[in-house]
Amino acid sequence: MNNLLLGITAWDPEPWRARFQKALPGWNVVLHTEDYDPATIAYSAAWKQPEGAFSGLPNLKAIFSLGAGVDHLFKDRKLPPGVPIVRVVDPDLTTRMSEYVVMHCLMALRRVRIYDGFQRQRAWTDLRDQPQASDIRVGLLGMGKLGQDAARKLGVMGFQVAGWSRRPKAVAGVEMFDGDDGLAAMTAVSDILVAILPLTPDTAGFLNARLFARMPKAEAIGGPVLINVGRGGLQVEADILAALDTGQLGAAVLDVFETEPLPESSRLWLHPKVTVTPHNSAISSPPAIAAYVAQQILAAETGQPLVNVVDPAHGY
Amino acid sequence: MNNLLLGITAWDPEPWRARFQKALPGWNVVLHTEDYDPATIAYSAAWKQPEGAFSGLPNLKAIFSLGAGVDHLFKDRKLPPGVPIVRVVDPDLTTRMSEYVVMHCLMALRRVRIYDGFQRQRAWTDLRDQPQASDIRVGLLGMGKLGQDAARKLGVMGFQVAGWSRRPKAVAGVEMFDGDDGLAAMTAVSDILVAILPLTPDTAGFLNARLFARMPKAEAIGGPVLINVGRGGLQVEADILAALDTGQLGAAVLDVFETEPLPESSRLWLHPKVTVTPHNSAISSPPAIAAYVAQQILAAETGQPLVNVVDPAHGY
Repeated sequence: MNNLLLGITAWDPEPWRARFQKALPGWNVVLHTEDYDPATIAYSAAWKQPEGAFSGLPNLKAIFSLGAGVDHLFKDRKLPPGVPIVRVVDPDLTTRMSEYVVMHCLMALRRVRIYDGFQRQRAWTDLRDQPQASDIRVGLLGMGKLGQDAARKLGVMGFQVAGWSRRPKAVAGVEMFDGDDGLAAMTAVSDILVAILPLTPDTAGFLNARLFARMPKAEAIGGPVLINVGRGGLQVEADILAALDTGQLGAAVLDVFETEPLPESSRLWLHPKVTVTPHNSAISSPPAIAAYVAQQILAAETGQPLVNVVDPAHGY
Repeated sequence: MNNLLLGITAWDPEPWRARFQKALPGWNVVLHTEDYDPATIAYSAAWKQPEGAFSGLPNLKAIFSLGAGVDHLFKDRKLPPGVPIVRVVDPDLTTRMSEYVVMHCLMALRRVRIYDGFQRQRAWTDLRDQPQASDIRVGLLGMGKLGQDAARKLGVMGFQVAGWSRRPKAVAGVEMFDGDDGLAAMTAVSDILVAILPLTPDTAGFLNARLFARMPKAEAIGGPVLINVGRGGLQVEADILAALDTGQLGAAVLDVFETEPLPESSRLWLHPKVTVTPHNSAISSPPAIAAYVAQQILAAETGQPLVNVVDPAHGY
């Protein structure tokens, strides 16, 4: 019999069991906390599984992450080698990420936080010589499916768009950069920098003082803007605060943090140039995630290849 | 000799004279406050010209509005009949209007004002079951060039889009409505209503309690949202405030007002569900406007037809 094993610690696993049982008729869905015969587990799906939850499963064909990120999986040093790891990249999640990225780029362009302040003072004040979108370049760090969708939509709204990926990549309509030299070059011309990168040993602490120092003055929007929708581990929060205080950064929009939930003591919460959201830039609906994973399992069972398989050498 | 007459009261006319003199080499640009021979005036351009400023000009070929709206021109009861009136519809203005409309629709969808409140309380709180753009329908009142551009970009971001025009019109990719019955039908299915209408006797006071009562509950975004980027005369502000207070409207984003600047005594300023901006949703840059008008004048002088000529019977 085919079994699906759920290794979930951060969320209530029971609604997930119900979703998968509905989407996989005739399958047995078990939790890592339950008793089961390891030989009957064909697939597993995880959100922050405990270490070793997926070891000792002789017939395991694939491990699914119940989100776009897989860094939580790789924290498990007993993850069975050689078993394909699959990310969820469903259209719902992509659409939501682009909603967030395009909205915050527009809010930076249109100086919403400044106008909110005028409103609170009941001041009918207009900033003069406002730029239009085509005067502003958005640089996207990370040009996977999410980055490419955001790039396309930013382009439709009129922004200049540049993209960076570690390895060379061509994307229609986007000025592309790659490697360390490309990172320096793109950062130097990006009024708004958007991080959609995965967290890997290469990207940890990537958004730091050295990077911010390379950004242009971006006076037209009150200084350069950092948007991080990737992972909190990408950013050095002390460097962000210092750059905001000196004016090297004009604003920061952060959906992810070094520690989540963001501790109440963090200066980021009440900093006037910081927007904090609770890691919800691209929450896919659980039913959509379960449907995506179930559809991949059923396709794999008919011999079709898995899609969005992670390259363990790169960690994404 | 060809002269251009500027009838400008709301702005400093001198920078406008300088722009037109640069864009129309060899022309003489005069102000309505100066002495000039009426027979030498071939064109006039206006922003809130004094009544009668353009009467008695025997050789006047066209009157240009220095903005997208022309209602300010029609307030002049001595406007010479039969002289074509031309609106500025430059790409810059269209792009900026769509920036504002798409941004505020995304802000309503993503509940930015609610999350701002959570941040001020240092609360790591996520609203559950948030809709995605495809769950929300934006109804556009007014489907001229500005409405059509906004519709296309809202569609790219994933929103359902409907459009209303007084007279029947087909627009690719948009569910279209027209006439009074169509207005009632579209309003009943629009979670977000965006007014991009011109101010005419037909549209004055159009955004009123009767219209708001037709809107759906739009619970997914905390109640239906009204966005007015047209003219202040479209809206009944007492009705907007009443509908916000009863919850019939969830939020209002107003760029235009019955009286501008918005009086300091208005309750709109500090209402927690209202966003006020100082009539800047689509300010075209003065150099772009002058370039557009000058280009039309030079084209007309070579025998080409004027474009964006207003139909005086409809007032737009």
